Amino acid sequence: MQPTLFETARSEKSEMLGKAVSILTDAGSVLILTHKSPDGDTLGSAFALCRALKKLGKQVSVICSDPFPKKYYYLHEGIESMQFEPELLVACDIASINLFGDRLKEYENSVGLCIDHHPSNTKYAEFTLLEPSAAATCEIMADVIDLLDVEFDSDIANCIYTGVATDTGCFRYSNTSPKTLRTAANMIEKGARAAFINKMIFETKSRGRLEMERLALENLEYHFNGRAALIVLTRSMNEETGIDESEMEGIPAITACIEGVEVGITIKEKDTDVYKLSLRTNGQLNASDICTRFGGGGHAAAAGCQIEGKIEDVKAAILESVSDAFSVRDKLFSVKQKGAQKV
Amino acid sequence: MQPTLFETARSEKSEMLGKAVSILTDAGSVLILTHKSPDGDTLGSAFALCRALKKLGKQVSVICSDPFPKKYYYLHEGIESMQFEPELLVACDIASINLFGDRLKEYENSVGLCIDHHPSNTKYAEFTLLEPSAAATCEIMADVIDLLDVEFDSDIANCIYTGVATDTGCFRYSNTSPKTLRTAANMIEKGARAAFINKMIFETKSRGRLEMERLALENLEYHFNGRAALIVLTRSMNEETGIDESEMEGIPAITACIEGVEVGITIKEKDTDVYKLSLRTNGQLNASDICTRFGGGGHAAAAGCQIEGKIEDVKAAILESVSDAFSVRDKLFSVKQKGAQKV
Repeated sequence: MQPTLFETARSEKSEMLGKAVSILTDAGSVLILTHKSPDGDTLGSAFALCRALKKLGKQVSVICSDPFPKKYYYLHEGIESMQFEPELLVACDIASINLFGDRLKEYENSVGLCIDHHPSNTKYAEFTLLEPSAAATCEIMADVIDLLDVEFDSDIANCIYTGVATDTGCFRYSNTSPKTLRTAANMIEKGARAAFINKMIFETKSRGRLEMERLALENLEYHFNGRAALIVLTRSMNEETGIDESEMEGIPAITACIEGVEVGITIKEKDTDVYKLSLRTNGQLNASDICTRFGGGGHAAAAGCQIEGKIEDVKAAILESVSDAFSVRDKLFSVKQKGAQKV
Repeated sequence: MQPTLFETARSEKSEMLGKAVSILTDAGSVLILTHKSPDGDTLGSAFALCRALKKLGKQVSVICSDPFPKKYYYLHEGIESMQFEPELLVACDIASINLFGDRLKEYENSVGLCIDHHPSNTKYAEFTLLEPSAAATCEIMADVIDLLDVEFDSDIANCIYTGVATDTGCFRYSNTSPKTLRTAANMIEKGARAAFINKMIFETKSRGRLEMERLALENLEYHFNGRAALIVLTRSMNEETGIDESEMEGIPAITACIEGVEVGITIKEKDTDVYKLSLRTNGQLNASDICTRFGGGGHAAAAGCQIEGKIEDVKAAILESVSDAFSVRDKLFSVKQKGAQKV
């Protein structure tokens, strides 16, 4: 009997997984790379692998171009950074060499294994274990560690849990699959301190961050009868609140979660008369189409671009573009309505 | 061989579950009760059961003392409310008859079956299926429906998913167990629209609610070197923003999520010179002890009380009480430190 397409896909997937595991097994010393501006998934998958390989008696270290954010301290607690000539370089959760950062530049052409879930992965490594359906690289890493025949301890479980939780907004986003939830369930059984990690990552804010939220809400404007919401964030707000880029995560989402708002616009001052725009839509307007007009791009529901000029002109330009998008959409909608009436 | 304690507990649990299922199977018509100020778990478990019993050909309806919140419309979509003399009354997620509300008062003494997860359940029903380890009543209901031998469809899956997601803050809180996550995983496989439900419930805010958050942040005060944060919410803020009690959920949590804050205090004006206080601590101070002084109570990490008087006096009173709690804790801590040094 011929195998079904599904069976073929599954056997290919487990073949890829087996290949990755044998590359890891064959190496005596491994240097693990994480992407710049490191997040919970790149660090979680890297330190889960690091801890697993250490249990197998290998020499392992993890490096990053940027410092590890303080809140993720428990991922690398007890792991010391080491200097050695590695037999194998492994990139975790790094879609492209553009994300290596300065400190990792020298390794661009010598990555032996890349483990990743980004569909946009550029396949820069000698071998790439890519599972675009995984919500997080940590979801794939759990399978890798399982196949390496390493017993999960609570430290490894904390690392894996952190990656799947952070990349899914604590299981809120649409990338959360049954497998994601079951991976998290398994990690809690292996000793992951889920409630502690969730509180640390999702429920702790600095005073500066909270002050930035207040300023953002104070500057919130509605346009087009409440169908668009707009926030302008200036550099002086960053100075006033004392927070840096790493604490700005989630601020653009404020505009997009408002009832009735179809497009949320966040305009961030990058330099004098240079603004970075971030658009979020509820899926009815195409954010990427709007941003493409200004040389930007992204997805239908979230996109970005950069516009130069005085803030009044930048606002006028993006609002005009949004207005056009509303007109086109409304016209299409009315054509559809009329079509439906005819039937 | 004697069964272990664990085996005994499990077999008792499945016996209780079997008893509940046979009560349901024996009834031809069932009226399902939900608690007042209905939330996602009481409504999710009630409509999941309602849909399952309908599939078995029974006459079923769900009632509540209060209107169903708009955002949960999909739970009861397509279900019509019916008038009939029920053979059986089932209470879902109702810990005590105090939560019945006026419209359900007449049923207080005639509930045949109660399905609940609150440890405080007062056992007012003829038979109570109580599982205090479950994160949500919906987690128990999934087992009940499974045993009723009803095929889960996407509508039932949406109901169960909603209950487990809402009662765990979308899997953030410490009550989230591996079983909770696996129940959610199973429901997504049965067709629950998890991303849609999460967005609807956790990521959509009215303009008024957002304005209330801005006012709360504007009124945020720090005390005791940033170890306490305090917000006063007045009735005029509710008038200004046009939001009611049901939209206030999560506002007291703002004070508790700030880095360095050990106790968050939210003071809400209830009436002229009458204030409702809500305290959240990071577990080091006992919120319940502090509130007990004012005739209130609760848990160590979250408690409440009511204080009457001018707002300045109310603030002074609670801050004094918090100051005392800090002193006691700091003294205890220093004794422990000294003790540790001796060893």
